[in-house]
Amino acid sequence: MKNIPRVTSEVFIISVLLALPGSHGGKILVFPVDGSHWVNMNLLLEGLHARNHSITVVRSNTSWYVKEKSPHYTSITIPMPEAIKIEDQNFFVSFLSRMLEIQREGASVLTFVSFYWEMLTALSEIHRQASQLVVEMFKNQQLMQSLRDSQFDLVLMDPGLPGGVLVAHQLQLPTVFNVRWITSGEGHFVVAPSPVSYVPTSGCAVPDKMTFYQRAKNMFHYILNICIDTFVVSPHYNRLCAQYFGPDISFYHLLQSSDIWLMRVDFVFEFPRPTMPNIVYIGGFQCKPAKALPSELEEFVQSSGEHGVIIMSLGTLVKGLPTDITSEIAAAFAQIPQKVIWRHLGERPQNLGNNTLLVEWMPQNDLLGHPKVKAFVAHGGTNGVYEAIYHGVPVVGLPLLFDQFENVLRLEVRGAAKVLDVTKLTRKSFLQALQDILHDSSYQRSMDHLSKLHRDKPLQPLDSAFFWIEFVMRHKGAAHLRTESYKMPWYAYHSLDVISFLIAAVLALMGTVIVMFNLMCRRVCRMRKLKQQ
Amino acid sequence: MKNIPRVTSEVFIISVLLALPGSHGGKILVFPVDGSHWVNMNLLLEGLHARNHSITVVRSNTSWYVKEKSPHYTSITIPMPEAIKIEDQNFFVSFLSRMLEIQREGASVLTFVSFYWEMLTALSEIHRQASQLVVEMFKNQQLMQSLRDSQFDLVLMDPGLPGGVLVAHQLQLPTVFNVRWITSGEGHFVVAPSPVSYVPTSGCAVPDKMTFYQRAKNMFHYILNICIDTFVVSPHYNRLCAQYFGPDISFYHLLQSSDIWLMRVDFVFEFPRPTMPNIVYIGGFQCKPAKALPSELEEFVQSSGEHGVIIMSLGTLVKGLPTDITSEIAAAFAQIPQKVIWRHLGERPQNLGNNTLLVEWMPQNDLLGHPKVKAFVAHGGTNGVYEAIYHGVPVVGLPLLFDQFENVLRLEVRGAAKVLDVTKLTRKSFLQALQDILHDSSYQRSMDHLSKLHRDKPLQPLDSAFFWIEFVMRHKGAAHLRTESYKMPWYAYHSLDVISFLIAAVLALMGTVIVMFNLMCRRVCRMRKLKQQ
Repeated sequence: MKNIPRVTSEVFIISVLLALPGSHGGKILVFPVDGSHWVNMNLLLEGLHARNHSITVVRSNTSWYVKEKSPHYTSITIPMPEAIKIEDQNFFVSFLSRMLEIQREGASVLTFVSFYWEMLTALSEIHRQASQLVVEMFKNQQLMQSLRDSQFDLVLMDPGLPGGVLVAHQLQLPTVFNVRWITSGEGHFVVAPSPVSYVPTSGCAVPDKMTFYQRAKNMFHYILNICIDTFVVSPHYNRLCAQYFGPDISFYHLLQSSDIWLMRVDFVFEFPRPTMPNIVYIGGFQCKPAKALPSELEEFVQSSGEHGVIIMSLGTLVKGLPTDITSEIAAAFAQIPQKVIWRHLGERPQNLGNNTLLVEWMPQNDLLGHPKVKAFVAHGGTNGVYEAIYHGVPVVGLPLLFDQFENVLRLEVRGAAKVLDVTKLTRKSFLQALQDILHDSSYQRSMDHLSKLHRDKPLQPLDSAFFWIEFVMRHKGAAHLRTESYKMPWYAYHSLDVISFLIAAVLALMGTVIVMFNLMCRRVCRMRKLKQQ
Repeated sequence: MKNIPRVTSEVFIISVLLALPGSHGGKILVFPVDGSHWVNMNLLLEGLHARNHSITVVRSNTSWYVKEKSPHYTSITIPMPEAIKIEDQNFFVSFLSRMLEIQREGASVLTFVSFYWEMLTALSEIHRQASQLVVEMFKNQQLMQSLRDSQFDLVLMDPGLPGGVLVAHQLQLPTVFNVRWITSGEGHFVVAPSPVSYVPTSGCAVPDKMTFYQRAKNMFHYILNICIDTFVVSPHYNRLCAQYFGPDISFYHLLQSSDIWLMRVDFVFEFPRPTMPNIVYIGGFQCKPAKALPSELEEFVQSSGEHGVIIMSLGTLVKGLPTDITSEIAAAFAQIPQKVIWRHLGERPQNLGNNTLLVEWMPQNDLLGHPKVKAFVAHGGTNGVYEAIYHGVPVVGLPLLFDQFENVLRLEVRGAAKVLDVTKLTRKSFLQALQDILHDSSYQRSMDHLSKLHRDKPLQPLDSAFFWIEFVMRHKGAAHLRTESYKMPWYAYHSLDVISFLIAAVLALMGTVIVMFNLMCRRVCRMRKLKQQ
């Protein structure tokens, strides 16, 4: 890299400047999503609190991660008539083991369809419950009046569970989304044109340069997502829209009219695709420099000598893989000279090597930032992938659920990861993947390149988020950045009426010309005949 | 506006920090466009020079604005076999007067078509000459070798005349565009999906919320622009591509593969529309705070007392309107209590009022930033409109040529301008427009709102331009922000093959089901018959 003047050091100063709290804060009403989404949202809220904003978080009484009390927000707890499914850890654990079972045993079409049906039922249930939270709020007139009296400046929400848009509409407040997934697809698909020929649909692990088969698969998933949205997700919220706002307001219009979309996306990680002026990219905003490790862990890491360390973690939701798989992993680890730190919550594999340390929790970001860490065995959750990119650590991907397949595929396409199918994993294939990542320097080079691109920004993603949230407060929205084209009927949006009209006009013109030409010909012929007679 | 913490003061510090020259500069090869486009480009080059970059500008020997010698760049002058049309001031002046004549006299369809044909011929001629400049460069092998030896980091160019992309491809250099218009349309249309149902086409003055008629008109202009691109502009460059690079490289691919598009667009002024990750918005980057006026002018301005001042300018290219129109304008000006400063190069109107000062040049930005200036009578060139927005001065629009009609329309739609058809202008209609702008406070309020939005940015547009130019230097391009979907065949891009395949598959499946059902029915019938017998 040539020595072109960098603004990075200046950017650091900018970050410090921007992080200074303002003198008068605004009031923000927050609708978060539980689980790993909350980790992100909470980080944003901490920062907003430090910038003197007063924050009120709406949570259900069954919430799992979102605590009632916090030093940086007050909360409104909505008592729910039943426990919320998505807030139940066991739901995901049993879901994963069912899925692995089906995949490993090569299930029949019938089993697969029945499993998929179950999944859709669960999705519908989750959204029914999320919409129920809105009903509970609307029923409580005292609560709604107190929200009105509070004069919030905006609603900040994760539209993964989108009930908050109805409350925002009721309170006539502008909205800012902290978003990656929305209802049942990727956020972009709702606001930006997304040609499925090169924009991978969520749930479909294909690259941006696709074969015919991949494009057909992508189209299939796109149609599937539209069907899921239309028949499984939206009805719950549309029912409420009709009930509370009348027939002119649809749930999708409320989503699409959000002022700013803080998208947890960065194009070193996602494929380039069309976007809109009110989409602000904050992918990797949670990344930060590594802190020192606890002394015991540091000692273990240092004991690896020149070989270095591999770390492995499969995320917050997953308690453990089936023992036969973990035993294969342990056997492969035992054969390498590196030390291994493995976050593992299930049964201890009997064939664990001396070089492998099992832990129940690890300071993942601090380890990834440690110079001795050479590779990251990961499930491919968004947060972990961004940390790996930020610190430049190549990845062995073992995707299990949801977007994890797409996440690690994108790293693989860019030469920074090796991906294995966990249901077919053997000690041999896993060892081979580890050795490839450790000894083929191209993986490290690719990851270093991604890391350099990711860190080279005019404004750090978190500062960008703060700026645009405060922009919406100052100007009571950001209407000038938002198209309202979604209000057009679909045939008008796609110009089908105009195209029909133009084709009709051309045909009419051609018809007239032909008729006139015919008439003229006939007259000429008749005149000739008359002359000849 | 509530007292939400602003980053504006911090942003000022950022600007100062970013403006600090780096220690080691890069080498930039520049292909500018003459005329008002050069004003913009030159400003960027001054800034880049101050940041320690070494700049080489390619110009023709007939260039009008782009001087051979400058303190902030060196130049390469290409001797041309003939004078370049676009670099001839008289070309535009005579073009404008022809156009006004036709419009005022309500020309016949034949006259209009012949004028349009002349315009297309001129456009083709301009691009033929611009491509000739590339030929002259390629023929000069010594020059090309010295360019190779110079090891430039990137080509910075205005793709209004796009010959530079061929040179960049020949030298294998990344490109950054400083762009608004490209070949014969708006830059966005070449890289970002642009549904014509809500994205106004260049050359078609319609808002983003269109009637059916406006949508049909917009579609017509879109098709027209594609035809112009295909038959008038591209052939000149495609011929060169075929000659120098072989059949696989087309001119459009070279355009579309540019790394960064610094787009002279801001969404307080343009309508929101889809964009791409490698488009960076720098609209209004040329705006700066007003400096003090020369003492004589300041005296004149102050003499206006509480009534204030109106300024009028119709841009750099236009020498003067027909005398009957200027006489109507002068008569209207004479009837108002405000003072008027009028940049006027033609014959002095005989009925000029005492309150009106004719000047051959005015410090437009400094006047617009003066608190006494109440309104701006303008043709609607991009630079002037951005200055008006920056300083918050409402506009009376008298569009004459090119994009000026669209520019002032956008201000009008936002309530910050009143637009008149110059060919139908009378002293009465002009006076009415002036009085509306001066006495209906909504125009000033709308302009103040646009001005506030425009100035409220996390990074000033000029700093943004510097950052991304240097980003491309540091990383030798910005491939991760750029889609290569344009390389797909059109039917694949629009998924027509996949849609056909899926429809065929569904039909085949339905066919099979029907056939099988038929067969089964027949068998059942036969068995019944057998049973009955």
